Amino acid sequence: MSGTSLSEQKNRIALLIQYDGTGFNGWQSQNKGRTVQDEIEKALHIIFKKNIRITASGRTDAGVHALGQVAHFDFPGIMNPGKLCTSLNGILGQEIAVRNVYLVPDTFHARYSATQREYLYLIYNHPRRSPFSLNRAMWVNYKLDIDALRKISSFLTGEKDFASFCKKTSVQENTVRRIDEFLITGKNDLIIFKIRGTAFLHNMVRIIAGTMLDMLKNKTEPDYIIDILEKKDRKASGKTAPAHGLYLSHVTYEPELTEMESAF
Amino acid sequence: MSGTSLSEQKNRIALLIQYDGTGFNGWQSQNKGRTVQDEIEKALHIIFKKNIRITASGRTDAGVHALGQVAHFDFPGIMNPGKLCTSLNGILGQEIAVRNVYLVPDTFHARYSATQREYLYLIYNHPRRSPFSLNRAMWVNYKLDIDALRKISSFLTGEKDFASFCKKTSVQENTVRRIDEFLITGKNDLIIFKIRGTAFLHNMVRIIAGTMLDMLKNKTEPDYIIDILEKKDRKASGKTAPAHGLYLSHVTYEPELTEMESAF
Repeated sequence: MSGTSLSEQKNRIALLIQYDGTGFNGWQSQNKGRTVQDEIEKALHIIFKKNIRITASGRTDAGVHALGQVAHFDFPGIMNPGKLCTSLNGILGQEIAVRNVYLVPDTFHARYSATQREYLYLIYNHPRRSPFSLNRAMWVNYKLDIDALRKISSFLTGEKDFASFCKKTSVQENTVRRIDEFLITGKNDLIIFKIRGTAFLHNMVRIIAGTMLDMLKNKTEPDYIIDILEKKDRKASGKTAPAHGLYLSHVTYEPELTEMESAF
Repeated sequence: MSGTSLSEQKNRIALLIQYDGTGFNGWQSQNKGRTVQDEIEKALHIIFKKNIRITASGRTDAGVHALGQVAHFDFPGIMNPGKLCTSLNGILGQEIAVRNVYLVPDTFHARYSATQREYLYLIYNHPRRSPFSLNRAMWVNYKLDIDALRKISSFLTGEKDFASFCKKTSVQENTVRRIDEFLITGKNDLIIFKIRGTAFLHNMVRIIAGTMLDMLKNKTEPDYIIDILEKKDRKASGKTAPAHGLYLSHVTYEPELTEMESAF
């Protein structure tokens, strides 16, 4: 280390981030609208007086929330993670919170090192809307049969070609993904889908949720979802459920971020 | 009934109402600011083309939420409660929802017929703020000892003089109230106080919550709350916890509103 001055030493930092996606045009920087990435990069610029680009585990679309988004960046210098966490939260608006800051190895990459991603899809199931689920859960005003939803979900776990559950893009891509866990819980008026897998296609969770709701509405047999999968065509599936019900809840790394040096 | 035309026939209607209190200057109509009462009366005016005054179970202060506020009014005429519920929700903004509409007896009074009131006080207990508890729970960033909170709460149930837990007013009033249930639950980072009693003094729940938190911070013995009660002086208690943690959750009537003819 003799030839390296402190200012040249690189620290790779990972941020654990929550955001209410309502007021944002998604995670990623773009020409139009406020984005979460821009807000965090602006805050880092205020702290470090440098342009710093951050890389997330994945994009989230406009209106989608995050409970456990992860992003990394390199900071040339020495720093105290706890102080950085406090400073970022002081600068950022109330819609974004940095929940923890970790010093990670140089080989850590928020996107490529991620081994699992977990999403929640929240459904507020009540005949009348509630101000407390506004922008936080999809409102469904007819009674949903949780057992029927669970039966459908059981056909979606494992490695499958999810081409029918992917927003069409011009690029031909491999649409095989693996869902490792698909848990559906219901408590009071809130139904929560928890879906965990290696990676997800664009809009995959929202198309899965929307299709399952369409199937219940149309009284389709649960195993019809196998036919939809086999068609490998977006036209075979149902509606895309709204963005405001979706939460990126957890990104898994090995070892877990919590085993890194953290702000607490 | 021979001399009574349909238009003279009176229907007493009770509304079960939820609201996010963030954007309101409380329940009650007043000279300044938007109030929940005004918004509902404006919506009733649009529907019935008449000025209709509504009476609630009690006021809520600026920023305080309601999960189960009840208000009544008399409508001269015949109506379908289900249709009224749908119409009101169509007119009202997203911050207020009418959850149900009941046809109640002429003797029903939202305030005077209420036998019990239940409030929730929500505390988000985590070192870092969360966008999802913003305006919905009080944020406490140091670890709270739930057992210690429960010990303090055990001294507050039953009939007591709560003068120390009442916002000072110019009017001399009877400050004896009865707390029938005080339950404290903690799950993940959310601590919920559930307080049920016959009636509450102004700011009573918020001063109780604030005082209990102050006691934990100052490591005061739980039974010191008895001394505070005995002093019968607002100066003896602690801070008033913020409005945005408080929810009017349930108002009890005998028989319960749910036993009345409802919209569903």
